[in-house]
Amino acid sequence: MARRGQQRSLARRQRFHTAKNLVMALAGEVGELVAEFQWLTPEQAATVMDDPEAGARVRAEIGDVMIYLTRLADVLGIDLTEAAVAKLAEVSVRYPAGEVRGSAAKR
Amino acid sequence: MARRGQQRSLARRQRFHTAKNLVMALAGEVGELVAEFQWLTPEQAATVMDDPEAGARVRAEIGDVMIYLTRLADVLGIDLTEAAVAKLAEVSVRYPAGEVRGSAAKR
Amino acid sequence: MARRGQQRSLARRQRFHTAKNLVMALAGEVGELVAEFQWLTPEQAATVMDDPEAGARVRAEIGDVMIYLTRLADVLGIDLTEAAVAKLAEVSVRYPAGEVRGSAAKR
Amino acid sequence: MARRGQQRSLARRQRFHTAKNLVMALAGEVGELVAEFQWLTPEQAATVMDDPEAGARVRAEIGDVMIYLTRLADVLGIDLTEAAVAKLAEVSVRYPAGEVRGSAAKR
Repeated sequence: MARRGQQRSLARRQRFHTAKNLVMALAGEVGELVAEFQWLTPEQAATVMDDPEAGARVRAEIGDVMIYLTRLADVLGIDLTEAAVAKLAEVSVRYPAGEVRGSAAKR
Repeated sequence: MARRGQQRSLARRQRFHTAKNLVMALAGEVGELVAEFQWLTPEQAATVMDDPEAGARVRAEIGDVMIYLTRLADVLGIDLTEAAVAKLAEVSVRYPAGEVRGSAAKR
Repeated sequence: MARRGQQRSLARRQRFHTAKNLVMALAGEVGELVAEFQWLTPEQAATVMDDPEAGARVRAEIGDVMIYLTRLADVLGIDLTEAAVAKLAEVSVRYPAGEVRGSAAKR
Repeated sequence: MARRGQQRSLARRQRFHTAKNLVMALAGEVGELVAEFQWLTPEQAATVMDDPEAGARVRAEIGDVMIYLTRLADVLGIDLTEAAVAKLAEVSVRYPAGEVRGSAAKR
């Protein structure tokens, strides 16, 4: 019974969890994470984990982001850690003693 | 010399890499990832890794997302894998044989 | 009474509605809009407004996005329509009979 | 000649500018806007328009966001201003003298 439920669940997932949909789901979850921080001052944001309720919400949202990022990478055949390490290595070659600053560094 | 550069780089990172800024950097990188998929049909999105150029860009963007997600989790003292597993466990309790469908499941 | 409430509300808004926070609020609302579309096929997405419930949610999310985009532009002293028109004019000069395709066109 | 180019451009736009794709394009542009603000302090963000270069980039990104939001609303048959006003009216009924604070207010 549970097994049949799992198979049905897997079939449904394969239909919905296309690369394009997973990219959107990832963006949606990141939007929820951003919403947790949007009205906080930098100081409040830095100590958000000290607040039991807000901390639990932030942890749950980060969990959601990681779930969809992992699924997306899986569907695309990408190893998440390898992709991050390759990117860091590339940046450290381009900016030897410099700072990794995301899009600022890329300009 | 290289060592002094690394110290300066670390000091700069601590100033910029606040929780609030890292959440924004994560959102910015996810925006770049979304942009890679926005004009693709579902079929093109599914095979994007077969295209050497687009595939390399997608891998690089996923690397960037993973880098900022890891830094954010680090700054907040959250273990990424634990957060994802905890969220999956919670969902499987709430929807025993059901489907994890992001915000659709939460409604 | 109502007037005092409005003044308090305005003071609170000025404290929270900084440019940085409003950019995040905009990103959060766009995340909610993306979530409405993430599991829909292209065909379902095209006819989402025919569904009374989903249509009402999409309209509400688009309203939210417009509210925060307007406030952000206001805080920055930018005229939304002028900014859009200026961008379209610039693109039509660069790509005379071409296609406006967002980041794809910019590459 | 220019006319043929415009027709080709229009046909291409209709193929790419589906509701689902436009939602993604909007998210991508908002990601670029977020990237402009991610490393700024709240004070720097408040005065970003005083910097000619950064100010021009912010204006261009806001123009892009407005372009895709307008196209999306157009494709869905939604009037942007009406959607925003309807949402504001709904909030002011629910929170008479209160504050519109996005997702914080909704909790």
